[in-house]
Amino acid sequence: MRIGILGTGTVARTLGDALGGAGHDVVLGSRTAGEDKITFAEAVAHGELLVNATAGAGSVDAIGASARADREGKVLLDVSNPLDFPSGELRLTVSNDDSLGEVIQRAFPELRVVKSLNTVTASVMVDPGSVPGDHVLFLAGADPTAKAVVRDLLGELGWRDVQLIDLGGIAGARGMEMYLPLWLTLMQTLGTPVFNVTVERGRTPEAGQ
Amino acid sequence: MRIGILGTGTVARTLGDALGGAGHDVVLGSRTAGEDKITFAEAVAHGELLVNATAGAGSVDAIGASARADREGKVLLDVSNPLDFPSGELRLTVSNDDSLGEVIQRAFPELRVVKSLNTVTASVMVDPGSVPGDHVLFLAGADPTAKAVVRDLLGELGWRDVQLIDLGGIAGARGMEMYLPLWLTLMQTLGTPVFNVTVERGRTPEAGQ
Repeated sequence: MRIGILGTGTVARTLGDALGGAGHDVVLGSRTAGEDKITFAEAVAHGELLVNATAGAGSVDAIGASARADREGKVLLDVSNPLDFPSGELRLTVSNDDSLGEVIQRAFPELRVVKSLNTVTASVMVDPGSVPGDHVLFLAGADPTAKAVVRDLLGELGWRDVQLIDLGGIAGARGMEMYLPLWLTLMQTLGTPVFNVTVERGRTPEAGQ
Repeated sequence: MRIGILGTGTVARTLGDALGGAGHDVVLGSRTAGEDKITFAEAVAHGELLVNATAGAGSVDAIGASARADREGKVLLDVSNPLDFPSGELRLTVSNDDSLGEVIQRAFPELRVVKSLNTVTASVMVDPGSVPGDHVLFLAGADPTAKAVVRDLLGELGWRDVQLIDLGGIAGARGMEMYLPLWLTLMQTLGTPVFNVTVERGRTPEAGQ
């Protein structure tokens, strides 16, 4: 599959290497073209599937730099977080009654946005086995077919089906993004970004007891 | 120990029953006194340890209804969430660069505020064994002695030490409170509030490998 990744940072490169290694035809796009760099618009034109790995505050501009015809009907896997790093302290640029995933879906209704992978560090995204147990990833998005495409892609990265929790529509991105402050505090507490959460369900009472 | 719980809702009653069952002298206070009801101020005067189990939007008023001399130096375990139910949709009344835990600590510097228990449903608070595994609770607060008191209390409710993660100062309440949208989405997805998360750390590379 041809995959166009928007972004050239650690997450973009880590995902690009892993998806390229899995046999896909992957390009990374950045804001400005260079010697061996292509633009966001060219990455979008290239991809049958798109991945948003830009800094959240710049994501809408990055995606919008492409021609609408090049976006029409494509799946966009949004792995970004709306973190406001320039402000000097942790702050989400959008939260509570909205989310970056929803902002992107509203701005580009021709895309089928699926939010996932934003709750783990880059190395865990592509190597889930580096963390023990059935730790989980969440998915949110309106289009079941698009989510199925993303599930397959996650499977190629090593995620097992039992580890994937479908939170329903794209509004599920709110919880996934607002989890980030807890994630960042845990990273400081644990002294490593290489961790993830599992979800344990309560024991079901036996019938007749 | 004499414990004064602010609030008379499900969380307050569930905690009150469990702590009373553990041998503590527990009272629940509400906004208005009644036949067999006491006020917030009376509950605060009664307690050597205080528990804030009021709706988040009313917590500062509830605590502030007491005499300052009755609060002086006491540990307040804050289990509330700043959920804005009247707005009709899920919304935190404070988040991002502040939290209810911090708001309460700033408003009442004479209290030693410890945030905990707000990330699980009432029944799990007092029966952690109802969920399998080493699922976790977080603690945040400035005062180590106050956190030790709360850890002991959590132990009496059945929480094992390995399940308790100390996130440091009271600013850790931000992540604990902003986790709530994900918790609520998971509750809808799983069809039950009886669940919790575990934190799995990455495998440490062996020396020499």
